[in-house]
Amino acid sequence: MSIFSQVAIVGGTHGNEFSGIYALKQWQQNSETVTRSSFSTELFFANPCAYQANKRYLDCDLNRQFDPKLLADQSLANYEQSRAKVLNQQLGPKGDPRVDLIIDLHNTTSNMGPTLILLTLDTFNTQLAAYVSERMPDAVILVEDHIEPIQQAFLCSVAKQGVIVEIGPQPQSVLRHDVMESMHEMTTHILDFVHLFNIDQVPELPEKITGFRYTETLHLPQDASGERIGMVHQHVQDKDFVPVNPGDPLFILFDGSEQTWQGDYVAYPHFINEAAYYDNNIAMSMAERIEINTK
Amino acid sequence: MSIFSQVAIVGGTHGNEFSGIYALKQWQQNSETVTRSSFSTELFFANPCAYQANKRYLDCDLNRQFDPKLLADQSLANYEQSRAKVLNQQLGPKGDPRVDLIIDLHNTTSNMGPTLILLTLDTFNTQLAAYVSERMPDAVILVEDHIEPIQQAFLCSVAKQGVIVEIGPQPQSVLRHDVMESMHEMTTHILDFVHLFNIDQVPELPEKITGFRYTETLHLPQDASGERIGMVHQHVQDKDFVPVNPGDPLFILFDGSEQTWQGDYVAYPHFINEAAYYDNNIAMSMAERIEINTK
Repeated sequence: MSIFSQVAIVGGTHGNEFSGIYALKQWQQNSETVTRSSFSTELFFANPCAYQANKRYLDCDLNRQFDPKLLADQSLANYEQSRAKVLNQQLGPKGDPRVDLIIDLHNTTSNMGPTLILLTLDTFNTQLAAYVSERMPDAVILVEDHIEPIQQAFLCSVAKQGVIVEIGPQPQSVLRHDVMESMHEMTTHILDFVHLFNIDQVPELPEKITGFRYTETLHLPQDASGERIGMVHQHVQDKDFVPVNPGDPLFILFDGSEQTWQGDYVAYPHFINEAAYYDNNIAMSMAERIEINTK
Repeated sequence: MSIFSQVAIVGGTHGNEFSGIYALKQWQQNSETVTRSSFSTELFFANPCAYQANKRYLDCDLNRQFDPKLLADQSLANYEQSRAKVLNQQLGPKGDPRVDLIIDLHNTTSNMGPTLILLTLDTFNTQLAAYVSERMPDAVILVEDHIEPIQQAFLCSVAKQGVIVEIGPQPQSVLRHDVMESMHEMTTHILDFVHLFNIDQVPELPEKITGFRYTETLHLPQDASGERIGMVHQHVQDKDFVPVNPGDPLFILFDGSEQTWQGDYVAYPHFINEAAYYDNNIAMSMAERIEINTK
């Protein structure tokens, strides 16, 4: 019996990230492209109401609602909070899920290229990362394992295993040909790998690959009253996963002065100037570069 | 007496185009940067409610409400329709306006660089275009004179003279350092030119410059039921103002087939894949290349 017998591909978790939504439409008409003999694949449109409204979400970010405490709290019942509970029932429930693997499809306005986000570095994810990296040299592996997967608030954390396909840059509510092709390509590699893993025929993989591990989140400069007083410096704009040294400029204030990177390590910014994060005044995430050993 | 004695700089006509909104904030604190001795400058935040809602508009596109028939129709009273009547009163009224020149600040998600949009090619606009082009070599001059300025629906058509500063690419609801700098630079050149024009000291200008004249609008491919069945081809994505020959690919359908440019002229697409135009299923505008004579 396959380790991964039930796969779910989820699109439209954010209603204005169009690539996943349109990819689902195409796969609904050609379901053989996303199935393999060792598993079945279901397609889920996570937030159709937000898509109808042409917004990321109606009430709150659906992809932050899958923390087990939030799922258990029945008093949290706005649109996305309710939708999270429904999806948890359909795909999970978290902790004892029906679905073995969720592939959640996202876009970003940041220049992140095709990025595969992993919630943990177990054997499956490690080999998956190596398999995808080898076949898609421009792909970036981003590890967000600062929280246990079971405690994660991401939708994909509901299944036994979950990954995020995150492709940018693409403005909100736009469909780019190149971004769509990257999403198809990365999803296809993931599905191919799951099948090979299931039938115990994973090919020879590179012994180690380069990845990035999330470290912290930086905010846009604000004054004491909370007014935004600066923006991301052009020194880092569009330079996702390019190293920033302590002292390098990160922000330009409207008065012309600069703010520099104050950390004590070489950081790899990503989600730089992501439009959706302005709500929370977030400027970028930082990561450190890591080696991922596949043996 | 100056020909242009009253100038208005307008930002936030679209609530999610942040550069103009933040430029206004900066100029409110340093008003000397936008005034010159031969004219006074007022700053207008056209659609603050849309900005609060983090949307282009609440009810309808404010920058399409200044057609004289719409302004005269008191039954049109949704938020932007009402706001247009207020702005027409404050800046116009159209036909006999108080304000001599409106500079309306916009962003686009399209890769248009710094673009100066003119509604007519009279002596002032022609010389302005040459002055800006010479000082800002990456600037594009786009002429939208297929409608008489008085019949135009754009906000800037309310004053005696109106121009649009349109800078891209910038995602909606994002502030880019490079785009902000371009907006400052182009606006400064326009203000400098207005002053020189007022005091009859326009410097020697190139005899002719290259510009583009709007010809037509193309829509995204749809099926008979109105469902979108394709997207902008990567052959033209990000290639604003790059020539397209008859027969060149413009769209890729989700079934893998291509649609080509069917016009009988070499076209210069712009506003390619602009996010805000998806509402109306618009894919891009086309233009022809023109020579603008300044003598």
